[in-house]
Amino acid sequence: MEKIKLGPKLPRFVLPIVAMGANVGGKPNYCAVAWVTVIGNDPPMLGLVLGKGRKTMEGARENGTFSINLPGTTSAMALDYCGLVSGHERDKSEIFTSFYGTLGSAPMAEECPLSAECSLHKIVDFGNTEMIVGEVKESYVDENCIVDGNPDIKKLDPLIYAMLGGPYYSVGNKIADAYKIGKDFRKK
Amino acid sequence: MEKIKLGPKLPRFVLPIVAMGANVGGKPNYCAVAWVTVIGNDPPMLGLVLGKGRKTMEGARENGTFSINLPGTTSAMALDYCGLVSGHERDKSEIFTSFYGTLGSAPMAEECPLSAECSLHKIVDFGNTEMIVGEVKESYVDENCIVDGNPDIKKLDPLIYAMLGGPYYSVGNKIADAYKIGKDFRKK
Repeated sequence: MEKIKLGPKLPRFVLPIVAMGANVGGKPNYCAVAWVTVIGNDPPMLGLVLGKGRKTMEGARENGTFSINLPGTTSAMALDYCGLVSGHERDKSEIFTSFYGTLGSAPMAEECPLSAECSLHKIVDFGNTEMIVGEVKESYVDENCIVDGNPDIKKLDPLIYAMLGGPYYSVGNKIADAYKIGKDFRKK
Repeated sequence: MEKIKLGPKLPRFVLPIVAMGANVGGKPNYCAVAWVTVIGNDPPMLGLVLGKGRKTMEGARENGTFSINLPGTTSAMALDYCGLVSGHERDKSEIFTSFYGTLGSAPMAEECPLSAECSLHKIVDFGNTEMIVGEVKESYVDENCIVDGNPDIKKLDPLIYAMLGGPYYSVGNKIADAYKIGKDFRKK
């Protein structure tokens, strides 16, 4: 297959998109973040990368807590609104119905089937951007997304985002079991 | 909707899965990484989080270069093999057909429709894990994945991974345009 050079740019690939929540001056604020990953499993830690100056980050710094909310595809409109509008310009406290958990100060979005409340572990500076790393202190899932005792991807129906600029997609078909199908791989 | 507490654990969500490539002692090695995100757009930077002691990381440190290769769903078996087997125990140089680009020392996987070659920018220590941040110096895409001058998600057909433990999925249906559908959002 002929390879085409695209230049020094971000590849076109898909990422989950989440709503980060934090209280700012006692009021919930939510922003859309697609630059999200796992930092570790023990303890459970997640990292979100944001451009500097975001209002939700002010809230995370203020309280030392924040939340990560994984929307279903039915929340695409609300999520997109979170990304279009700055909390510096408009009150975003009522985009979602907020609830609070163990930490008391990290607002979570009831409309999202899965939420994790985090304590702020570290902020890593990358120049134009910064990564907030949080340790998951508790997680919450909609009762109807549980299958055989665990959250089910098809029930969660998560929203994913194509770099750069979209669109949003759903998760498609199961391709194979992980840590299993590779056992049949034979080198050429 | 009733919310169920799951405890302090990583949420069940989907992430892209990539093959990280690096030369170790002059020979290509590849490992599977799902903990991947964007660090910045200008310059284009990507971050991969790995448990410590991975052989591919040795190669990235040795050369100051590495690659990120985005497999299609047809490469699920090879990707899974990369994750099952350690480069410390077996030679993984022939899992993919390697090609080299501008940097000369970052092996890329011809079988993956999209590859980015990176120079090592920084390694961030997180205790059990470390994040390697690379600046994309050039990117390569299969000619038949280009639609209207840009890589097309449906042609790339990327493999995605469900935390924790799988399975692998394909990308599903388009849900909505980003930076657009949210314009119609009205607060309750």
